Amino acid sequence: MSAAPIIRHAHREDVPAILELIRELADYEHELQSVEATEAKLLETIAFAPPDAPDLAVTGNIPTTEPTSPSRPARCLVLITPEGVTAGIALYFYNYSTWRARPGIYLEDLYVKQSERKKGYGKRLLVQLAKEVVAMKGGRLEWSVLKWNEPSIKFYEAVGARMMNEWVGMRVDGDALTRLASMLD
Amino acid sequence: MSAAPIIRHAHREDVPAILELIRELADYEHELQSVEATEAKLLETIAFAPPDAPDLAVTGNIPTTEPTSPSRPARCLVLITPEGVTAGIALYFYNYSTWRARPGIYLEDLYVKQSERKKGYGKRLLVQLAKEVVAMKGGRLEWSVLKWNEPSIKFYEAVGARMMNEWVGMRVDGDALTRLASMLD
Repeated sequence: MSAAPIIRHAHREDVPAILELIRELADYEHELQSVEATEAKLLETIAFAPPDAPDLAVTGNIPTTEPTSPSRPARCLVLITPEGVTAGIALYFYNYSTWRARPGIYLEDLYVKQSERKKGYGKRLLVQLAKEVVAMKGGRLEWSVLKWNEPSIKFYEAVGARMMNEWVGMRVDGDALTRLASMLD
Repeated sequence: MSAAPIIRHAHREDVPAILELIRELADYEHELQSVEATEAKLLETIAFAPPDAPDLAVTGNIPTTEPTSPSRPARCLVLITPEGVTAGIALYFYNYSTWRARPGIYLEDLYVKQSERKKGYGKRLLVQLAKEVVAMKGGRLEWSVLKWNEPSIKFYEAVGARMMNEWVGMRVDGDALTRLASMLD
């Protein structure tokens, strides 16, 4: 049997399975203690598809979720195996390139369950996102990876990604964010 | 005279000044040849404020632009000096943290005109963005910086940002993006 998996945008009903995959991914990145996500928070912040939305393989790349907004910026693809297992997720949002004055997609998290590896599921999720970038006339598909995660970096380079070694990310959060917000008050 | 500058979301009429600042920034980053942005493209991809939208200092942090969308994901703050010069811009979009299941802001580009430096304008733009993250109950304000840009890194660390040294960005664009999109066809 070589039935293809289904890739579609997440429904509200997928949230328990999504949270389980998020926790597995965090554990793999040695960050389980950082996971503050709960089912309730995911329900508030992801733009979901209606339960009767068709499989993306059927619709092509027509977005099938409620609209994204500043407080609900994320979309989530789920991959369901022929056996009915929610085996992978791709959580993403829309970014922007000033140089190009074009939108793009930033993949915040890609994860395939340990027990469902080596079946090309990660690549299928990346291909689906690349299709959406092309369909929206966007410029780039981007994401970040931990520098020690050699297997992932090799996989990403094999599908055409390049490392942006000359850049480093900066972050303000927690107390530093509150302090910055009130620095001129 | 210590009149404060005005910070507000960009109107369509600000686009020529915004493009000029984008080109100055690209020149500073040795990337002028990479600028494909035009006035027409910026008009299509930024979520603008109506011309009668009030100054953000008056309204607090209530967003005053048309809605963002996948094809128009960017918002742009402009800083106008007491002399009426458009001295700085902050182009940003909304990102997402899976760990926190909370939205945040990603600052794509921050730029203050060379001739208007040392007046605290860059900090004012960052503070405004931090206020928006706090107001939306977001988790993080993030951006990237070129590793060789020591003066900027020092400035960012002074306002509370930390470097995300353990991560590296990955990008697929151009022909590699088209190839990835059709890899399973």
